[in-house]
Amino acid sequence: MIQRKKEHWFKMLFVWQGSVLPQLLPRLLVLFVLSCGIVYANGTLYRYKIPLSPAPFTIFGVAMALFLGFRNNASYDRFWEGRKLWGALLNDTRSLARQSFTLTNYELTSAEVRHFTQLLIAFTYSLRHQLRKTDPSFDLQRLLPSPLFESLKAGLYKPVLLMREMGLWTKEARKNGQFDAIGQAAMDGNLNKLSDIVGGCERIASTPIPYTYQVLLHRTVYLYCFLLPFGLVDSLDWLTPFVTVFVGYTFVAFEAIADELEEPFGTEPNDLPLNAISRMIEITLLETIGLPTPEPVKADPEHYTLD
Amino acid sequence: MIQRKKEHWFKMLFVWQGSVLPQLLPRLLVLFVLSCGIVYANGTLYRYKIPLSPAPFTIFGVAMALFLGFRNNASYDRFWEGRKLWGALLNDTRSLARQSFTLTNYELTSAEVRHFTQLLIAFTYSLRHQLRKTDPSFDLQRLLPSPLFESLKAGLYKPVLLMREMGLWTKEARKNGQFDAIGQAAMDGNLNKLSDIVGGCERIASTPIPYTYQVLLHRTVYLYCFLLPFGLVDSLDWLTPFVTVFVGYTFVAFEAIADELEEPFGTEPNDLPLNAISRMIEITLLETIGLPTPEPVKADPEHYTLD
Amino acid sequence: MIQRKKEHWFKMLFVWQGSVLPQLLPRLLVLFVLSCGIVYANGTLYRYKIPLSPAPFTIFGVAMALFLGFRNNASYDRFWEGRKLWGALLNDTRSLARQSFTLTNYELTSAEVRHFTQLLIAFTYSLRHQLRKTDPSFDLQRLLPSPLFESLKAGLYKPVLLMREMGLWTKEARKNGQFDAIGQAAMDGNLNKLSDIVGGCERIASTPIPYTYQVLLHRTVYLYCFLLPFGLVDSLDWLTPFVTVFVGYTFVAFEAIADELEEPFGTEPNDLPLNAISRMIEITLLETIGLPTPEPVKADPEHYTLD
Amino acid sequence: MIQRKKEHWFKMLFVWQGSVLPQLLPRLLVLFVLSCGIVYANGTLYRYKIPLSPAPFTIFGVAMALFLGFRNNASYDRFWEGRKLWGALLNDTRSLARQSFTLTNYELTSAEVRHFTQLLIAFTYSLRHQLRKTDPSFDLQRLLPSPLFESLKAGLYKPVLLMREMGLWTKEARKNGQFDAIGQAAMDGNLNKLSDIVGGCERIASTPIPYTYQVLLHRTVYLYCFLLPFGLVDSLDWLTPFVTVFVGYTFVAFEAIADELEEPFGTEPNDLPLNAISRMIEITLLETIGLPTPEPVKADPEHYTLD
Amino acid sequence: MIQRKKEHWFKMLFVWQGSVLPQLLPRLLVLFVLSCGIVYANGTLYRYKIPLSPAPFTIFGVAMALFLGFRNNASYDRFWEGRKLWGALLNDTRSLARQSFTLTNYELTSAEVRHFTQLLIAFTYSLRHQLRKTDPSFDLQRLLPSPLFESLKAGLYKPVLLMREMGLWTKEARKNGQFDAIGQAAMDGNLNKLSDIVGGCERIASTPIPYTYQVLLHRTVYLYCFLLPFGLVDSLDWLTPFVTVFVGYTFVAFEAIADELEEPFGTEPNDLPLNAISRMIEITLLETIGLPTPEPVKADPEHYTLD
Repeated sequence: MIQRKKEHWFKMLFVWQGSVLPQLLPRLLVLFVLSCGIVYANGTLYRYKIPLSPAPFTIFGVAMALFLGFRNNASYDRFWEGRKLWGALLNDTRSLARQSFTLTNYELTSAEVRHFTQLLIAFTYSLRHQLRKTDPSFDLQRLLPSPLFESLKAGLYKPVLLMREMGLWTKEARKNGQFDAIGQAAMDGNLNKLSDIVGGCERIASTPIPYTYQVLLHRTVYLYCFLLPFGLVDSLDWLTPFVTVFVGYTFVAFEAIADELEEPFGTEPNDLPLNAISRMIEITLLETIGLPTPEPVKADPEHYTLD
Repeated sequence: MIQRKKEHWFKMLFVWQGSVLPQLLPRLLVLFVLSCGIVYANGTLYRYKIPLSPAPFTIFGVAMALFLGFRNNASYDRFWEGRKLWGALLNDTRSLARQSFTLTNYELTSAEVRHFTQLLIAFTYSLRHQLRKTDPSFDLQRLLPSPLFESLKAGLYKPVLLMREMGLWTKEARKNGQFDAIGQAAMDGNLNKLSDIVGGCERIASTPIPYTYQVLLHRTVYLYCFLLPFGLVDSLDWLTPFVTVFVGYTFVAFEAIADELEEPFGTEPNDLPLNAISRMIEITLLETIGLPTPEPVKADPEHYTLD
Repeated sequence: MIQRKKEHWFKMLFVWQGSVLPQLLPRLLVLFVLSCGIVYANGTLYRYKIPLSPAPFTIFGVAMALFLGFRNNASYDRFWEGRKLWGALLNDTRSLARQSFTLTNYELTSAEVRHFTQLLIAFTYSLRHQLRKTDPSFDLQRLLPSPLFESLKAGLYKPVLLMREMGLWTKEARKNGQFDAIGQAAMDGNLNKLSDIVGGCERIASTPIPYTYQVLLHRTVYLYCFLLPFGLVDSLDWLTPFVTVFVGYTFVAFEAIADELEEPFGTEPNDLPLNAISRMIEITLLETIGLPTPEPVKADPEHYTLD
Repeated sequence: MIQRKKEHWFKMLFVWQGSVLPQLLPRLLVLFVLSCGIVYANGTLYRYKIPLSPAPFTIFGVAMALFLGFRNNASYDRFWEGRKLWGALLNDTRSLARQSFTLTNYELTSAEVRHFTQLLIAFTYSLRHQLRKTDPSFDLQRLLPSPLFESLKAGLYKPVLLMREMGLWTKEARKNGQFDAIGQAAMDGNLNKLSDIVGGCERIASTPIPYTYQVLLHRTVYLYCFLLPFGLVDSLDWLTPFVTVFVGYTFVAFEAIADELEEPFGTEPNDLPLNAISRMIEITLLETIGLPTPEPVKADPEHYTLD
Repeated sequence: MIQRKKEHWFKMLFVWQGSVLPQLLPRLLVLFVLSCGIVYANGTLYRYKIPLSPAPFTIFGVAMALFLGFRNNASYDRFWEGRKLWGALLNDTRSLARQSFTLTNYELTSAEVRHFTQLLIAFTYSLRHQLRKTDPSFDLQRLLPSPLFESLKAGLYKPVLLMREMGLWTKEARKNGQFDAIGQAAMDGNLNKLSDIVGGCERIASTPIPYTYQVLLHRTVYLYCFLLPFGLVDSLDWLTPFVTVFVGYTFVAFEAIADELEEPFGTEPNDLPLNAISRMIEITLLETIGLPTPEPVKADPEHYTLD
């Protein structure tokens, strides 16, 4: 599943694709030009020397390290929790598909098992569409029987309504004597887990890191970078713009990555490859009940986390 | 669900709304005026030069970074745990609503299912009111049958009493042969989870971060800020007030945010949007059992975490 | 439940009650006097100048920040885990009380349900007494029937013996046909959770943070503080004692708080308010089965975490 | 199970085997030669003095410590989570093997129990082969009956298909009256856990730490190391190359270890000893059902984590 | 259970017993002598002045703090996880003992319940012996009936075989009509937890922190300490050996503690008191079924964590 091959340590220094560098270039250019101006003016502003020594930068440095570290950990935790939720989705849908024919009297190849598996796949796609605010109609139409598709059209929380359908499927199966209460309860336990997954994804999507944190950190990072040339000009002279841009790059890039990871369900380069994961769930579920499987999603050069 | 649109990196530097800046302005003004006085007096106090070199500030810096980092992590963990508990509330009430008609013989549209769902919604609202110490009468009256509402009026722990009602509902349903023991046990398991959620919220609300921590940190931060001008005046001269206020802003703001997040169930700008979440639970539960749904809560410009 | 009202930021700087300052005063006085002596002697010891520059302090500072941070996190985790365990105790006893009349055929107001609830309350009090090594006789006598109270008197692990009684209660109820196996298993699951809570509390109470850590940290902090004046005297002169005491206060206080929180079940000011929590459990359980409830524990000005 | 004997503290300083030093030697040599050139040229580049003072290095240092610490924690967490998943695999397969003869009417030594145990062992090996992308044919052929082996050959997710077989085994056993629904549900619960383990391993294997992080960190570390001689040459003179290489070694090695641990299922020296663990699972499962056990995997001098 | 009484803050500075100081004395002596030599030679090596300024030490310091902090957290986590596992063992054996007479029809004092409890105690002791690679014969012989003891003698994984016996006990009980399927499943769930505990302990015991980490950290710490005198000699002169030894002590001791805690199941002073815990489990289980209890293990002055 892993596409990324280990880069040679030397070549990795000059990677362009897949770094945040392209996106940050304009800001770094502004920083470079500004630094050049400050060197030219010898660190004066309207003929008044700005006497910034390294001392304030050490103090700022402590604050910034603190803020950046916190922000980055919080963002990465969100990213990784999102990934765990989608991993749990894979596990639970596999378990439910297996239970649909081992805990009931249905045959592996029966229409009922197939319908239940389609519900699981439709559930997966509709969750992805809800998180990305895209239209699920295409996927739901190809996976669900027409009447059900129609009745879902106006639904606000489609994945929840599909879970209701699965619950009703278990009720129906028990009525038909395919099931006993124990087996139904076992499947119901996994439906509860699906409910936790839906809610967990909604929680991450709807509750960003408090906005004040973002503003405060953003200000600290950029002011630090734009004041840096005043602090370096006396000792570094014409090297100032280069050092400023390099130091600035590391801090600004760190903040930019944290910003991207914070919302793991989006479609930016480092977000979760929900397309590939949902297709993979479709493949493994269909294989489990012995049906032909579609092709996996092609590795997207813009997404590095999973092909 | 996400209202906040990505701000341009440059415009974000000058955001006013949603930062803690307005609230901190008076303190920063005091700091500014004080710094100006110290510059004017050349860092002397009663004609006696205060020879503060940067060395003590580095030492303080280590202590403060340590304290601020700890306080901030502890506060954010409380905020995020509170959010997780309300997320779990969403998941569990959805699961219970589903179980009320898939594990029993009740129809989706029966009066019993509807009553149970109303109990769940009333439970949600009464938990919010308990955490915010507001009066739940309005919400309980519109959701519950009159006799039940009356009997709850004097209750100390209303959410717990509503859980008791749900437990009695399952007992009643089993007596009426709508249920077997297995199904009742499955719903009972989810009632246990509700109990964990209530207790978890009460725990966060009733046990703040130990007060001595807050006092110690508060003192360290403010003394650091008010001593800073003495340390900077010799090298920065008339720039001292500006640098002091900027450095002070980052530290004081960081502490202020931690202070706000620490009690996530309040009504300050960065607290959890319990109004919107409880309304959302009402909507999704009613949709699950096929009833008309009310409007979601309008995005409150004072709350940034969820509309 | 929250008593503490938000202090004004300025008044909080001068709080006395509830900080660890009173307890640390003697040590800080020693430090102050010592510093004065060193300033008077110009940093010499037996006429030999102690040439401590700030460099060693920076090195020490890194070590100390590392140690203090670790110790503090470990202690706070223990405090918070202890709180979580007592929160879980609240949740589980509520769940068990509810189950005693919803999963059985017993009426809410029957003598059996009342007896079971008294067992739960007695369990709570006896756990508190075991953790604090106090005598549980008073509470057990008022809550339990005489024969049971007598038979428990010599018990080593009274909470465990009370759990046994609860288990036997479920066995009895099943024998009497008030219960089926499913219901008994559901209650048994919650008894398992009670067992986890007892064991978790015993674990925290019996396994302190390894003693070598405490010794090493203690030495580092105090040696740092007592050497500090030698490092500051040359640049700060008569300001040395004040700066030393202030810096020393922050470090010593941080260690003292960690030391207090480490054993959360004690009776020091920042320990968990087990009295108030166990009374609260008594109140909510009695309310659940419709009995009159006692008064809550009055807010103890020496305890800040819960009234 | 632990092979590594405690090294004497002095001898440990000169360990060669098992450190990442051999692998890093070429890079450190490049760094050494470069440093020598810079010392020879007195820190000038094309006759232009590069005036790098320690100040920028302190600033870089903060950034790098932040990045390295984050990367290292994230990698170690992945390593340890991978280890936990394989530990859970050991626990669950043991539990399932035990259940196959205690919850059913099958004898310990019956053919059915033996077949189920072989399924568990085959599951373990096929998971290892899937994670390492190696060919499972040899192991599956020796463990499974021919028809089953043939039917699995073309499977995409072989461990999942083997879980399906285990599910069908429980269905079969219940049909044959060896089992009741309760027992089947209990085993089904452990199959759910196996599903979680498979998914957890796939998640770690398919989702590396976001690539941008790696690039950013890699650049920061190497640029830091290659600029270091310019900063040290003035004060250290001919010692510069030695100090540079030693400092460089610690940072570069730290990054290299993080890089190795990040993918714990590979075959590099510090990766998880999946061969030894899967053999150990085979041994303990066979012993549980009273069959002769194979030899454990010999300690591989290239793997230090488990023999 | 807590033996350690709070030490006075002043006396604690001079504690000898229970610190790692005795063990580190030889290394610190080497360091002291070396420092003296360097002071005598004025920081020259073969008449060539080693111009180490504090700058490289600051850079090293960052690296070392990073490494030591990581190593220490990882080690303490292992220690605490080991403690949690043995705490869970206490909880689960208590729960199983209770279930053996509340979920079955057996009397509290019956031979079957007694036999099962002996199995639980034997399980506990055999796990301890396996983790410490000691001979379990003495304990198993006194606890188990002869035939069972003989059949276990050649077993590789004795705790697992004892779990098998417990599973067979439940099967037997059900055959004899003492049990229904539900009760057996409930006990089986706790046997699963025992399986998780065994596997968790084996995981910690068999997978040390990757060896490369240890080597890298060890080298960094000791090289730092042995280079320190060169950096301090110019400013501290004859104070150098004392400061070096004190700074060295803190770092070396921190590494030594981490090294001890890393393998929590050993018999070093800070390792877990498995003897006392297993005896405590024996006592509480025997008390639960009303049998006379042995004496607890005497507090071992070499072990500080639990008597």
